[in-house]
Amino acid sequence: MPSLLTPSELETRLQALPSWGIELSPDRLVRRFTFPDFTVAFAFMTACALQAEKMDHHPDWSNCWNAVDVRLSTHSAGGLTELDFELAYAMNQLADTLLGRLS
Amino acid sequence: MPSLLTPSELETRLQALPSWGIELSPDRLVRRFTFPDFTVAFAFMTACALQAEKMDHHPDWSNCWNAVDVRLSTHSAGGLTELDFELAYAMNQLADTLLGRLS
Amino acid sequence: MPSLLTPSELETRLQALPSWGIELSPDRLVRRFTFPDFTVAFAFMTACALQAEKMDHHPDWSNCWNAVDVRLSTHSAGGLTELDFELAYAMNQLADTLLGRLS
Amino acid sequence: MPSLLTPSELETRLQALPSWGIELSPDRLVRRFTFPDFTVAFAFMTACALQAEKMDHHPDWSNCWNAVDVRLSTHSAGGLTELDFELAYAMNQLADTLLGRLS
Repeated sequence: MPSLLTPSELETRLQALPSWGIELSPDRLVRRFTFPDFTVAFAFMTACALQAEKMDHHPDWSNCWNAVDVRLSTHSAGGLTELDFELAYAMNQLADTLLGRLS
Repeated sequence: MPSLLTPSELETRLQALPSWGIELSPDRLVRRFTFPDFTVAFAFMTACALQAEKMDHHPDWSNCWNAVDVRLSTHSAGGLTELDFELAYAMNQLADTLLGRLS
Repeated sequence: MPSLLTPSELETRLQALPSWGIELSPDRLVRRFTFPDFTVAFAFMTACALQAEKMDHHPDWSNCWNAVDVRLSTHSAGGLTELDFELAYAMNQLADTLLGRLS
Repeated sequence: MPSLLTPSELETRLQALPSWGIELSPDRLVRRFTFPDFTVAFAFMTACALQAEKMDHHPDWSNCWNAVDVRLSTHSAGGLTELDFELAYAMNQLADTLLGRLS
């Protein structure tokens, strides 16, 4: 089982993770992704769903047309673990690939 | 542009729509769908996404593993219209098809 | 009902459509799309599925990991019509958006 | 790496797998799934995509409106292995769940 990250570990990992923030009590890693329209937003969600199922670690997320709001935490650990940062990085990479910011 | 439904129209339509409720101020049609697991929940979301894009009327929805919470309203009209009930019915039918309750 | 395009109309439209070819007897508009991996390929297919359902015009397509082979024709017309070129353009645009070639 | 199944192993496994057949040279496990319409067919494909990515074993498949034709083999082994039967069973279960035949 993944273990909870300490506050200083959280700080270090968060600095290396562009565009995400942390909500406290309960602790959650959060980011809003925005896309040109619903079609691209849902294509992103599909790519993330594939990644999440592969990791067996799933987001709590909502979608309203072109916006996808993601909240990550590890329920079994009662807070934030490496798994949440791993999924957050993967989502950033998928958004970058799908929108060409890195290609 | 679709017009706002009156309170008595809302009441009539809601009685014909199993499992949905109404939240007020702002008015929204709401339902939680639950599925056996994330895979089936996301398959349902994909089917609904196809329907929503075809209608050009999209849900405000969230997903947490096997649960999909849907909130419908017509932004351009500032409340609930026929479009919301049409999408709600279609979502019920998709959930029924995907889970075999009607088949 | 959409009408069949003449050979000269086909030629003109094909010249304006990068990366697609035509197979004859039966006539079909064909293209292979390739992506970095299965995840991005399936995200592309999801975006195209939304577009196809909206147009009520669906591709005959196959997928093998990172490759998506698309064959378009209008069954009801027995050949190629404007609908096929409209869907082909939309697929090109989605691939460009999803891979950032235009952004 | 998964090892090739022998002809008698193939026979045994195939008898336990409803609705699938085998094509020879190259050996592939094949099945056609049919659904009420494109929306349900694509929802099925999405559920299968999640399963395939989780297994890191992907189908060679094609779709034409309500039909999904699946061909499975293990490229790295040059034929059929346990992985193909595992994915075939999972696809059967997803089709059953999504169409309610078992629920």
